[in-house]
This record gives sequence, C-alpha cells and structure tokens, in this order.
Amino acid sequence: MTLQVGVLGYRFMGQAHANALARLPMFFPDAPDVERDVLIGRDEEALADAADQLGFSRTATDWRDAIDDVDVFYNLGPNHVHAEPSIAALEAGTPVFCEKPLAPTLEGAEEMAAAARDADVPAGAAFNYRFVPAIRYAKNLIDDGELGEIHHVRGRYLQDWLVDPEAPWSWRNDEEMAGSGALGDLGSHTVDLARFLVGDQQGEIDRLSGHLQTFVDERPVEGEDETQPVTVDDAYSAQAEFEGGAMATFEASRFANGHKNDHTIEIQGSKGSLKFSLERLNELEVLREHNRGYETVLVTDESDPYIEHWWPPGHVIGWEHTFVHENYEFLTAVAESGEASPNFEDGLAAQRVLDAVERSDQTGEWVDVERA
Amino acid sequence: MTLQVGVLGYRFMGQAHANALARLPMFFPDAPDVERDVLIGRDEEALADAADQLGFSRTATDWRDAIDDVDVFYNLGPNHVHAEPSIAALEAGTPVFCEKPLAPTLEGAEEMAAAARDADVPAGAAFNYRFVPAIRYAKNLIDDGELGEIHHVRGRYLQDWLVDPEAPWSWRNDEEMAGSGALGDLGSHTVDLARFLVGDQQGEIDRLSGHLQTFVDERPVEGEDETQPVTVDDAYSAQAEFEGGAMATFEASRFANGHKNDHTIEIQGSKGSLKFSLERLNELEVLREHNRGYETVLVTDESDPYIEHWWPPGHVIGWEHTFVHENYEFLTAVAESGEASPNFEDGLAAQRVLDAVERSDQTGEWVDVERA
Amino acid sequence: MTLQVGVLGYRFMGQAHANALARLPMFFPDAPDVERDVLIGRDEEALADAADQLGFSRTATDWRDAIDDVDVFYNLGPNHVHAEPSIAALEAGTPVFCEKPLAPTLEGAEEMAAAARDADVPAGAAFNYRFVPAIRYAKNLIDDGELGEIHHVRGRYLQDWLVDPEAPWSWRNDEEMAGSGALGDLGSHTVDLARFLVGDQQGEIDRLSGHLQTFVDERPVEGEDETQPVTVDDAYSAQAEFEGGAMATFEASRFANGHKNDHTIEIQGSKGSLKFSLERLNELEVLREHNRGYETVLVTDESDPYIEHWWPPGHVIGWEHTFVHENYEFLTAVAESGEASPNFEDGLAAQRVLDAVERSDQTGEWVDVERA
Amino acid sequence: MTLQVGVLGYRFMGQAHANALARLPMFFPDAPDVERDVLIGRDEEALADAADQLGFSRTATDWRDAIDDVDVFYNLGPNHVHAEPSIAALEAGTPVFCEKPLAPTLEGAEEMAAAARDADVPAGAAFNYRFVPAIRYAKNLIDDGELGEIHHVRGRYLQDWLVDPEAPWSWRNDEEMAGSGALGDLGSHTVDLARFLVGDQQGEIDRLSGHLQTFVDERPVEGEDETQPVTVDDAYSAQAEFEGGAMATFEASRFANGHKNDHTIEIQGSKGSLKFSLERLNELEVLREHNRGYETVLVTDESDPYIEHWWPPGHVIGWEHTFVHENYEFLTAVAESGEASPNFEDGLAAQRVLDAVERSDQTGEWVDVERA
Repeated sequence: MTLQVGVLGYRFMGQAHANALARLPMFFPDAPDVERDVLIGRDEEALADAADQLGFSRTATDWRDAIDDVDVFYNLGPNHVHAEPSIAALEAGTPVFCEKPLAPTLEGAEEMAAAARDADVPAGAAFNYRFVPAIRYAKNLIDDGELGEIHHVRGRYLQDWLVDPEAPWSWRNDEEMAGSGALGDLGSHTVDLARFLVGDQQGEIDRLSGHLQTFVDERPVEGEDETQPVTVDDAYSAQAEFEGGAMATFEASRFANGHKNDHTIEIQGSKGSLKFSLERLNELEVLREHNRGYETVLVTDESDPYIEHWWPPGHVIGWEHTFVHENYEFLTAVAESGEASPNFEDGLAAQRVLDAVERSDQTGEWVDVERA
Repeated sequence: MTLQVGVLGYRFMGQAHANALARLPMFFPDAPDVERDVLIGRDEEALADAADQLGFSRTATDWRDAIDDVDVFYNLGPNHVHAEPSIAALEAGTPVFCEKPLAPTLEGAEEMAAAARDADVPAGAAFNYRFVPAIRYAKNLIDDGELGEIHHVRGRYLQDWLVDPEAPWSWRNDEEMAGSGALGDLGSHTVDLARFLVGDQQGEIDRLSGHLQTFVDERPVEGEDETQPVTVDDAYSAQAEFEGGAMATFEASRFANGHKNDHTIEIQGSKGSLKFSLERLNELEVLREHNRGYETVLVTDESDPYIEHWWPPGHVIGWEHTFVHENYEFLTAVAESGEASPNFEDGLAAQRVLDAVERSDQTGEWVDVERA
Repeated sequence: MTLQVGVLGYRFMGQAHANALARLPMFFPDAPDVERDVLIGRDEEALADAADQLGFSRTATDWRDAIDDVDVFYNLGPNHVHAEPSIAALEAGTPVFCEKPLAPTLEGAEEMAAAARDADVPAGAAFNYRFVPAIRYAKNLIDDGELGEIHHVRGRYLQDWLVDPEAPWSWRNDEEMAGSGALGDLGSHTVDLARFLVGDQQGEIDRLSGHLQTFVDERPVEGEDETQPVTVDDAYSAQAEFEGGAMATFEASRFANGHKNDHTIEIQGSKGSLKFSLERLNELEVLREHNRGYETVLVTDESDPYIEHWWPPGHVIGWEHTFVHENYEFLTAVAESGEASPNFEDGLAAQRVLDAVERSDQTGEWVDVERA
Repeated sequence: MTLQVGVLGYRFMGQAHANALARLPMFFPDAPDVERDVLIGRDEEALADAADQLGFSRTATDWRDAIDDVDVFYNLGPNHVHAEPSIAALEAGTPVFCEKPLAPTLEGAEEMAAAARDADVPAGAAFNYRFVPAIRYAKNLIDDGELGEIHHVRGRYLQDWLVDPEAPWSWRNDEEMAGSGALGDLGSHTVDLARFLVGDQQGEIDRLSGHLQTFVDERPVEGEDETQPVTVDDAYSAQAEFEGGAMATFEASRFANGHKNDHTIEIQGSKGSLKFSLERLNELEVLREHNRGYETVLVTDESDPYIEHWWPPGHVIGWEHTFVHENYEFLTAVAESGEASPNFEDGLAAQRVLDAVERSDQTGEWVDVERA
C-alpha cells in the first residue's frame, strides 16, 4: 500500500518535509511507500511551481477538498491555520502531522488535542529536534541513569534576524497569526526537548516565572510605504521547576546578534552532565560519571541512533536529516496503526508551558503550568 | 611612604591578597610601597604559621588592636565578620578593602556603605573579576559603542563542589554566617560584572524575578558524627530588566556537575556581541560590527589592559593576576587619596540585587530592586 | 534532454552519488534532467538490490555493455578499476566522472588524463571537498587577496579505523588494488584541496620529502581463518614547497585514535589566515586583516556558495551535500559541453604529488614533483 | 642554608626567573631558601634598574667576577653566551641553570654537556614546559600505559611576530648569536616536550628529514637607516621516527599570522590520545580507552601536579607558574645534591635533533640523529 500524502504549505517547512519524503526510499527502505499526492496553498501560480519542484502530483487551493482524499495530512502552514484543517482531517479519520507550535493559543491546542483523542488515527507534532541522533543518544544516557538525578536543565535558542529595526514585518510578528514570537517559534522547541530528555525522570514542568520583551514595536512592510505593529515578543526568558525538583531556565531571542540558529540544551545531574548545540548537531558533550570533563562525542557511529541509515563515522549529517527521521517514525506509525510520538498531547503540553510563560509575564507572578 | 597593611583572614583570600601585595614591586614599580604588617585571626598557631608563610611582620588575634595601627585594613574574613571591623576601621579613618559580598544582609551592606560615605578614606569592594584584562577590554568596547545598544546580558557561574551530598558542611552553607549560598558567593560576582560592563549605558538592574533552590538539606560535619542543616541556596536563577531596557538572565549553582569555576558572561547588542569565560580568562569572544561570527581575541597584547606589566603576547596569565591588578588600583587610590573603584557603593548595589532575588523568591513576584 | 547515467559501483560512493542525483531536481532546478539508468557491478543479486534501492532502471554486470548506451559514465569502483573503463568510455565519447584517487599508479593516471585530453567530452575527478561551501568561501577569500601572500599550508586527514590490529583486511590494504593506503585515500583529498585553495597564487607543489609507515603488517580476512599482508601505508607525512615559495606540511593516518573523519586545512598568509575542519564543515575560522583572532564564520548564509539552494542561516548541511554540488557542476558541464572542474588533469596533478611522496620515501631524499 | 643565586640576563627570562624565585617561599615553603644575590649584565645603568626592580642585592658586569661567589649560577643570556660562562661555572663547582636551547651549535652543547658530566653539581636545562601541570598529567597517563603504544607525535609552535617584513632585526635573526631561528627558539621546546612525554616508551628520535625556510632576507635595524641580513630560519618543519617506531611531525614558524604563542602537542596511541595547547595551558584533551571522544580535563584539581601549592579547582594558573615549578625542582636538586631534570644531557639531546634538522635541510636527505 502506498500512502497518499497531502501537504498544506509549500515554503520552508513544505520543502523540508517534501525532501524528507523523497529521501525515505533510498535510506529507509522499510518505511511505508509514500506518494506526494497533493500540495495545498492559496496562490495558484506559486503553488503550481512549488508542486512541480517538490514532486507533487497535483495541487489544491482549499484544504477541504483534499483532506478526505489523502491517507495522511501534513499541516505545515502558519500557526493560525493549524487548528481548523487539522481538526477537520482528524474528524475525517485522516492522520495528521502538524508543525509546531500546535496553535497560537492554548485553547486552539486543546481543541486539537481533543480532536486527536477522539480520532483513532495518529496525530503527530513535528518537533524535529527529538530526531537529532545526538539528542537520541542523550536521551538514552539519561534513561540509562548515566546522569543520575537531574538538577539543572538549561535551554536557549538564539537567532538574530530581527536585530535590524528595518527588518521587514511578517506574520511571525503578529499575535493573531503566530500566537507569540520567539516564545512560540523557538521556545516550543526548547520546551519540547526539555520534556523529551528529562520528562520520564522529572515529570512535567510544574511551575514557572516567565518574561517577554519586544524591542522594536513596529516594522516596515516589504515593498510598501507603511509599517505594521509588532504584537509578539522578540525575546522571552523563564525560570521553572519540574515536578521532580529539577531547576530549569529557558530563553530565546531574535535579537541575539551573531547567533543564527543557536539552540543549546545543557543538563547537569548527580552523576553526569551533557551539552548540545544545534549548530554542531553531530556532536554531544558528555560528562561521564568517572571522568573529569566533558567528552566531545561525535554521534556518527553506525551504532548511534539512525546513523546506520546514512554514512560512515565522521561523515556528518545536516539539519534536514532530522525531518527524514521524524517522517520515517510518523509514517511508520500511520502504516502500522501505531502511536505517533511526539503527538498532539506533547504539542499541548508544550503549549501549556508557553501559556504559563505568557500568564506569568502578565501578572509578574510565578504560575502553575496547567495540568492535563 | 610605605603603607602598613593589616589583613583579617589568612586562608584562601588571605593568600590571594598577600601574594598580590608581594608581587607589586616587581611588576608595578609605580605602586605604593607596602608592608605586610599584621595578619589577624583567632587561631594563634595557625595564624603564626600563616604570617610566616605569607610574609607578615606580626599577628593579632583581635582586629580592634590592629585597625588603628595600620594604614590600610583588608577584611578578608567570612561574610558575617565583614561589617563590624570594616565600619570600625572606617570610623577610625583607616581605608578598608573588603571581600565580596559586602555583607550577609542588605542591612549590613547599607551600614557599611553609610560608614564609607561618612569616612574620608577609600573603601574598596574586592570584585576582582573587573580586573581581568579581557573584561577591561570588553568594557572598553562597550564604552566605545562597538556593541551598540545592549539587548541581552547573560551571566552564569557554575561550580560543582556540593554535588556530592556527603560533601562536608561549612560556614558557606549557613545563612547566619554567609547570608546566602550560591547567590551571594557567586551571584555577587556576576551581578557586579554585569553592572560594570553595561551599567554606564543601561543604568542599574531595575526589577527582577528570582528563584532559589536547595537540593541537599543537611550535610555531615567533618570529623564528627553529626550533620548540620544547610540554610542557604545551592543554586539560584533570576531574570531581570535594566533601567535602559536590556534583558538579563543570571544563574549560579554549586551542583553543576563538571564545572569547577565556570563563570561566563554574554552580551548582545545592536552592533556587536561578546562572550567571556573565566576558565579561559585570557580570551574574549567578540562579534564586531562588520564581521559574521565571534572572533577569539587572545587578550595578551602589550596594548591590552594591564598586560604591559607582564609577559609577551600569548604568554597567558592566571586567576591570581586579577588580585595584583585590583590591589594596585586600590592601593594607588589610598596613596593618592583618590576614589576606590569598585567601592562600597558598588558592593551595596550588588547586595540590593541579591536582596531583590531573595525577596522575589519569597513572594513569587517580580520585585523592584531597592534604590539609593 | 535527459541525461542517462550509468554508474559503476554501488556501495558507499554509489549511494553518495545516487543520492546526489536524486536530490538535484528539488534543490537545483536548473540542473540537467538526469535518469539513473544503469547500475554496474559483478554480484548480480547485490546489484539488483542496490539498483532497486538507489533508483536505477536496470543493471549490467559488464561495464563494456553500458558505456555506449549512456550519456554519462560514473566510475565509482575501487581504484584499480578506474583506468580501463574510464578510458574506454572516453574513447567512446562518453563523459566520465571518476572517484579519487584517479588511479593506483601515476602511469594509470597519466593514461587516463591522456584519454581525457584526446576526448572531446568532460572528464571529471570527484574531489567533493572542493564543494563544501566553507571551502568555496575560503577560496574566494584567497582569490580576493584577503590572506595576502601565503606562507604556510597545513593539511591533515586523521582516521582511526585501523588502529585495532584485528580490524579486517580489505582491498584498501592492498597495493595492487588501492595503489597506496592513507596516502592515496586521504592524502589525495588533502593535496587536491591545497592545490585548489592556493594553486592560483602559489602554482603547483614543486618539491617535497615524503614518508610512509605501516604499523600492522598483516590483517585477518573476515570470516576466514587466515591473514593477508598489508602492502600499503597506514600513515604518511610530507613536507613540501610550492612553486611560489609557500611551505606545506601534509599528514594522514588510519591509526589516529579518536579521529573519525578529521580532515583539516590551515593556511597562513601575510594578511590573514584560515582554518577548516571537515567534521565541522559548516564553519570556517578566518583571521581577517584588521582583526586579532580567528573569527568563526558559520557558512550558511544565503549569500554563501551553494547555500541559497538549501536552508535558512544556521540550518546546517551535511557531508553528502558536497556530492550534490559536485554533481550539479559536473552534469551542467556535460549538458553545456563545458569543462569539468576539477578534471582528470587535476586528478593527475594530485597523483604526481602522491607519486613524489612514494619516490621520496623510497630514496630518503627530497624529490621534484613531476611536471606536465 | 640560603642559596645565593647569581643571574646572567635581566630581560624577559631574567624577570621570569626572578619572579619565580620571589614566589617560592609563599607557595613552596619546603623549597630551599634563596637570595637573589647578584644580577649580571653589561649595561650598568639598565642593570642597576633591573636589579632594583627584580630584587637583587648587587650587580656585576663580568660574569667571571660572580660565578665563584654564588651557590647557583643562572645563565639566561642570549644563546651565544650560554657556553663559556656555564662551563666556567661548572668547572668552579657551581651548579648551573641554563636557558634553552643549550647553545647555538651542537659543538657548543656537547662541550657544555661534557663540562656538566665532569662536574659534580646539578646542571639544569630550563625547559619550562615540562612543568605545566597538564603536561605532567599527560606524562603520567603515558607512563601508566593509558595511551598504549604510541603511533603518532605531532608538535607545532606557531608565532607571528615576524610576519611584518618591517619588524626590526634582533639577535634572534642572527645565526652567530642565536644558532638558528624558529628551529632553536621554538623547536627546542617542541623536541624536548616530545622526548619528555614519549621518550621513556619510544626512546630517542632516531632519524628525520628536516626543512628550513627564510621568508624575509633582511630586516631594518631599529632606530637606524640600515638593514641587517637574516641568517636564520623563519620557519622549520620535520618528519621523524622514534627508535620505538612512532612517527613524528614537527613544525614552527614566526610567520603564522594570528598565532601568538601557539604551542601544541598531539599524541595518538593504541589505547588513547591527547592534545595540549599552550595558550590554554590549564586544559588537556584526553581520549581515554573506553571513551569515544576527547575529554576536556581542566588540570586544576588539588590532586593534579603542583596544583596543591596554588588555588582551588578552576582557578587557573598562567605561563609564569611553570617557572616557579622548574625553579623549585632545580633548586631542590641543588640543595639536596640531587640530579637536575631536565639536565644538560636533555639539552644536548634536543640539540642533536635540531642539528639533524639543519644537516637534513642542507643535504635534502633523511639523516640519523647523532647518538650519545
């Protein structure tokens, strides 16, 4: 059986997933067969060009026309179009793979998660950084107890594409369309990685204090002689406690001059520690119990997660490979009627943390993260 | 004229300052002449040994007997003995050089600062990291506008000497003697560096949200079959805003497995950025305005701050050299009846921030840092 | 027109090139259309499986049957099968793309280069590291004079897959099949990169002194109760002079414990310097004329070589992307009847250097590199 | 008993050793008592100033007047004044501590070593990098077999103070006074470190091929309108074999733009590997047998070599501390009538390697290193 895939969104994420789908047969021969069936968007001309380049059989300008016909629905549009089509697809019994963050608001995410619970098909949240081999390796270390009891979790995601006040306005600067700024776009990744890595030991993030900041209040609209207000955060920080007692600090910015895609996670435990940096994603720094300093592990050995599918030791992979891995896992879940992981519950759990950051920022008080 | 120096405290800090005093003539020939006159402590035997090793002419077991006789009084004892002797010395017209943090409590620091204001002699706070050449170089960059408007300040001080729950209890674990734990011991350094580097542009830290955590509640007393309660924090975190609008995040821990003395400061501005790490204190990472990435500057050129006194380029200096620099500056201020910098006002300003962290931790709310 | 490609070899290099061919349409839409027509090998069963996985239309067990039918012939077999099929293809007027090193011996490489000269079609040598964006960026810096006059070139390629004396024997340990060991396999890459980067300024490597060493003389044959002699080098070193006067040192090893694919190039000139490491291939360390230290440039900006085809800044690419770039360039040359670069002359030039290393090792004397 | 020390030379090395002598009592209380007795030089005025600053009791303008009066003679002058005074002192029964390289020529070094053999007092060669704690730690690892059998030794010493062709001429550019250039000044350090670290396992450097290069042939004389010829090398490289079979490559330059005092040593063995860099001298990179990557060990623990004399973990030491350590060891040998280590035999052994590099450079052939 070949899975017919419909994809909403044909820009950055559209290309990243289309590429992943295209690469599965050569590198993951046991993945389900997939056909890039329909590409969905509004601008017919751009859509046709994209479908041609990305290898889709056809296009559609209304997702309503597509979600019944396909075996899987990928929702890769801007955040504010995540909820309605995803819920409709799930109600139609079509498995859904949705980009992060799940929705601009906690309410939206809750509705999506409820729809996923009601549906009998996989609903995957596309937190691709869980699929970095070095992150999987880190997860295994923690699960094996090699770090002992976790004391500190530190996550930081730094970019600088808005440091110029003249950088143009986009939907990512708009609360209605994006929900939040650095918080949702970058922080959702950090929160998910933290949950993924230490959640099995430390439970959920229990309570936190959050802070948002907008450095530039309005930005020029590209090609027009006007500005639009920036209604989301340019940067956020948070300090938090896990249920298990670990301390956490989180931060992200679009104003961190000199940093392009600098996502780092650091964890310290009673027996060991680790450090990861996305811009050097083939490496993991590990403090092992009987060592004195961090060991730079190049996570490219055949025995490392996902690596046997790729190249010999030291032949590094790139950012896009994480999409191949997550597509492989999600599609396998679809084909085998299994569970997507991460799923909409994970997306919701991350959203609850983002929501708590926003609530705390408004009140200036520590707040409890909402519970399931 | 030779300055007669009296020093209270003969352990770690006592040796660091005695060494600095001993090295001045050879490397800073224009420094005032200094005699290590009297070393003050309570354990007569240990004191005599220390005086012998550290090159002091005599000893005293009561600081009251010493402060009148000396030209300068160094208070290097535990935090809870900072206030009384320092104030007494200032009242006697004797210049005081006091280790950080200024006092265990804000009240103590305020009294000390008041005494310093009333006195007509220098009162220096021994924040030695201001005297790292790379930090001075960084300060010059910021003052010259090379980083533009500061958006982010990030300070972190990680140690791991308490990660073992069996590590013995000491005065540093006791609220009455130390005031606080990682917060005062490590955080005071971080806060002072942040103020030093960006304060001229950003003003004081205006408001913040702080968090304290104690991972191990009691610890064994060395050589005895009992434990003592830990009444201070093992780790703290804080998020803050400067008056000028810059965001800051601070953190310190004594449980950061694998980190010995890992004090890092990162600053990002509209034109440039920088990163500093104490364990590589001869280096500064600088993002310059027209460059794309951080440049690793080895701050050991003859033209770099303080370096002409030492060795040729690339011949790195160590942690202790910061004490030579700060003693040089403080003693010069004494000899020339100048101003100590940093002084007790700086010590008080840092203490206000530490106090705000503690108040915020108790209430769970953002608090304003107290003003002068 | 669609180019029909025939590929000899279906293991490591076969997969790397097949993947590159498969990815061109989505990322390099202006590349020629290509069909993976025929996959050539000897083991019919393994070949059929590989053709299926790698997306080839058909298979052939004799390259003679294929070279006339295809528009392009890729020779990705072991070194000792480079010469005959490549020459035959060229004589048949079929463009050839051949893996490095060109041949096990200088004579073989000379014959191949002669055939390429006589043919009127592109003959490309697959030195893929020329196509790392950071290397292209480096080349541009040097060409623009930003390093000034080059004084030092230093190339080193460290691996460790033979450090275990029980690691099994393979054709790579056999002089007849491989020509040489670390020298040809790794050193050919280093020599080519050095020529590529500084050759336009410094000319060819003029003379050198080389050294070969074999640490383990025989190795077990996998699955059998016998050993085979190791007749190639496990490591080599060389010191050399370019025609322009720059000094060079080269080294490679399969015994460098802890190093997987650690290829580094360092160049120092009168105005600037640079450092590159293959295991961090998205980065280039650059000393610019008016800076003091190396700047870590993340070569992932849209304006960087080849990057506009891929992902936004900071979204790193992997080793395999170099194959996409080199295939794009080679196939474009084929489609436009242009010149392949690097070509068989470059392969021959590298081989002359390898040959000089071997000759020097035998005589213990500096030798001149043979000239065109 | 207090050792009266006479020191020839009052510039860079004079200050480095005077500082070391001054610091011994406070940090190495079991070191012999030492008095900085007489400082020897030719320029009376500069000498008097230096003696004052460096804490010497008196001065002398002829070493002949001093060597009988002192208990120890330090020869810190330029290379061409190493031999005569050192030999005279040894013949007078005065222990000698001499800077490296031992002499400008092998003959000079041989005479010095012969004098040392005939004398019944310690004759120390001041290879201070043997006394870096991280190097001692490395030596212990190798001696304990933790690296297994050594395959590769790689030493490199890069500086850039001559890259500007207008940098002024000095005695270091003159063959008669210096013997050689980068080779003797920098290479002697590298060769000594290599011998120190692996010599007990691998024996001496057995044979080698060396190469010298001078990039700028004459340089301006400071303050005068003339130039002087450069008669030594600006850079050297060498490839070598140890008696035990390990391969070695060495290199140094004064033209390595961007490198100030960048001395690195790398060693790879059958079980482990290590990397050291002088500009980060508190760190050692160690590949341990059961690990996958290099571990960054901060060699500042109390249990590390020499560190118990200094500061707590993470409080880094500097370049100058190596002089304190070597003076401690040498003076202890003097006081206890022990053996200096390293001694003049070590100085001679290094000189034999330098000599072999020069001979090889002249003939273009591999040469045997002369034997004892």
